[in-house]
Amino acid sequence: MPHEFVRESRVEFADTDMAGIVHFAQFFRWMEETEHAFFRSLGIQLHRGTTHERVGFARVHADCDYRRPLTYPERFAVRLAVRRIGKSSLSYDFSFHGPLSEGQDPLAGEPVARGALSVACVTRDTPEGPLRSADVPSVITERLEVAPPEDPS
Amino acid sequence: MPHEFVRESRVEFADTDMAGIVHFAQFFRWMEETEHAFFRSLGIQLHRGTTHERVGFARVHADCDYRRPLTYPERFAVRLAVRRIGKSSLSYDFSFHGPLSEGQDPLAGEPVARGALSVACVTRDTPEGPLRSADVPSVITERLEVAPPEDPS
Amino acid sequence: MPHEFVRESRVEFADTDMAGIVHFAQFFRWMEETEHAFFRSLGIQLHRGTTHERVGFARVHADCDYRRPLTYPERFAVRLAVRRIGKSSLSYDFSFHGPLSEGQDPLAGEPVARGALSVACVTRDTPEGPLRSADVPSVITERLEVAPPEDPS
Amino acid sequence: MPHEFVRESRVEFADTDMAGIVHFAQFFRWMEETEHAFFRSLGIQLHRGTTHERVGFARVHADCDYRRPLTYPERFAVRLAVRRIGKSSLSYDFSFHGPLSEGQDPLAGEPVARGALSVACVTRDTPEGPLRSADVPSVITERLEVAPPEDPS
Repeated sequence: MPHEFVRESRVEFADTDMAGIVHFAQFFRWMEETEHAFFRSLGIQLHRGTTHERVGFARVHADCDYRRPLTYPERFAVRLAVRRIGKSSLSYDFSFHGPLSEGQDPLAGEPVARGALSVACVTRDTPEGPLRSADVPSVITERLEVAPPEDPS
Repeated sequence: MPHEFVRESRVEFADTDMAGIVHFAQFFRWMEETEHAFFRSLGIQLHRGTTHERVGFARVHADCDYRRPLTYPERFAVRLAVRRIGKSSLSYDFSFHGPLSEGQDPLAGEPVARGALSVACVTRDTPEGPLRSADVPSVITERLEVAPPEDPS
Repeated sequence: MPHEFVRESRVEFADTDMAGIVHFAQFFRWMEETEHAFFRSLGIQLHRGTTHERVGFARVHADCDYRRPLTYPERFAVRLAVRRIGKSSLSYDFSFHGPLSEGQDPLAGEPVARGALSVACVTRDTPEGPLRSADVPSVITERLEVAPPEDPS
Repeated sequence: MPHEFVRESRVEFADTDMAGIVHFAQFFRWMEETEHAFFRSLGIQLHRGTTHERVGFARVHADCDYRRPLTYPERFAVRLAVRRIGKSSLSYDFSFHGPLSEGQDPLAGEPVARGALSVACVTRDTPEGPLRSADVPSVITERLEVAPPEDPS
């Protein structure tokens, strides 16, 4: 489905802090990793593709609401939903689900956290020039769809 | 002033990513570092104090809006403002200012980013027991004040 | 084989720095992640197991030699080999291999880097007491073997 | 002194892991941060200087031996000593000292850890070309000296 993507992963020891749980900033790395895996699943390679050289996505907004902690070595799932496809920007919603048992539906159960990212398409006119706004390449917008609205949960 | 705190710091090489700028998740670490420095400046030591053993602050919300990138090895300032003092939670606003020249007013110029954290006071009944909600200790609430509203900028 | 373990993984965007390659400190996280995956593959869960509560492995030595850079979004393999099983410590050698093509033998080709970790078994007499040396539990030593010496390469 | 440099710093909450101590990979970030601060103290700016554009230092070896843990929010010092100045590479030794009391000599007491880095001078012929070996610029070698041998401790 070009409007959502689910990625399973595992908490690593170094993701934790002395409170014994995953450090809150780690969830933002996981959002980005899920976004990039989503793009790869669509055949789009960010920051290295041949059809969209020089185009990247700068983060302009990020948020996360934490409901329950994740601990090492739990498995969890991240679900990305495309929320908005703009002329020069994209927005995604994320939900984190866990801990997962072996063989369990990754989205079963209450979410651990919910988050969002908004990214702006940027380019450089020279390899070390300043970033400037750019239109999202059509090779990307053609492969994405906005996700249907969710039931509140 | 018990309602705000300013901390200067420097972008380190490892804070950057291959886009040549500070990775967006790093701003959340800097918010937390500023919060902890603020508490130290008030004589409050989180997670190790003798007057509030077993009390910590779990992150329940975090957000950041990015306006301009920070690059290595720029100096920058983070300003924390206390936004809300609840019975069992606290909220802060953050603004990031940079790059700073030597001797410059750390809050001069346009902000690089703005963010917020909401934290819930939590405790454990035993060292490895589950986290549960707790009232913010009076030793903390007595030393904090809510910041006055800001002019929009 | 209880003397070696191979784990495949992918470079993530946030693993890179402004030089456009994986930051060197990241390789140490990958060594530890491989060690923990190796232990899980043997049915041993570090830091949470029921048969060896309170026992952990403190890092006493770590090193890495870097031959070629890894870049985003390359896939790579980490090979762990058990080098020494001591009364209260363990040592591992690591080699990093990449970039990997889809379906390729993960250990094919020249290594990207080689590293080593030595870890000491430690325990605490109370949950927040100081770490002190302990014997490696027999449940662990019984499942490990020292790897045969390697041809130099 | 152009053969050594001491930098004081503080353990941050996010530097710790669920064992309650600083994660071992963090020490490598601190070595690099100290190296860069040393170069800044000599008026040399890595990766952005005008006299040595395109030259950087790729890490070719890193090691660390850990004697005692550091915990949040301890202050500590890192001492860098220049160990070798080669035609196209440099080597440093590091020692970590802590925890520090306010006003204490930063190098007092037993070291927490000892480490080393070897770095190779690299350049690119084009901004995205491959890294290749280069001579250390004379503007750098002229300002560095090899540290005298240390008494074993």
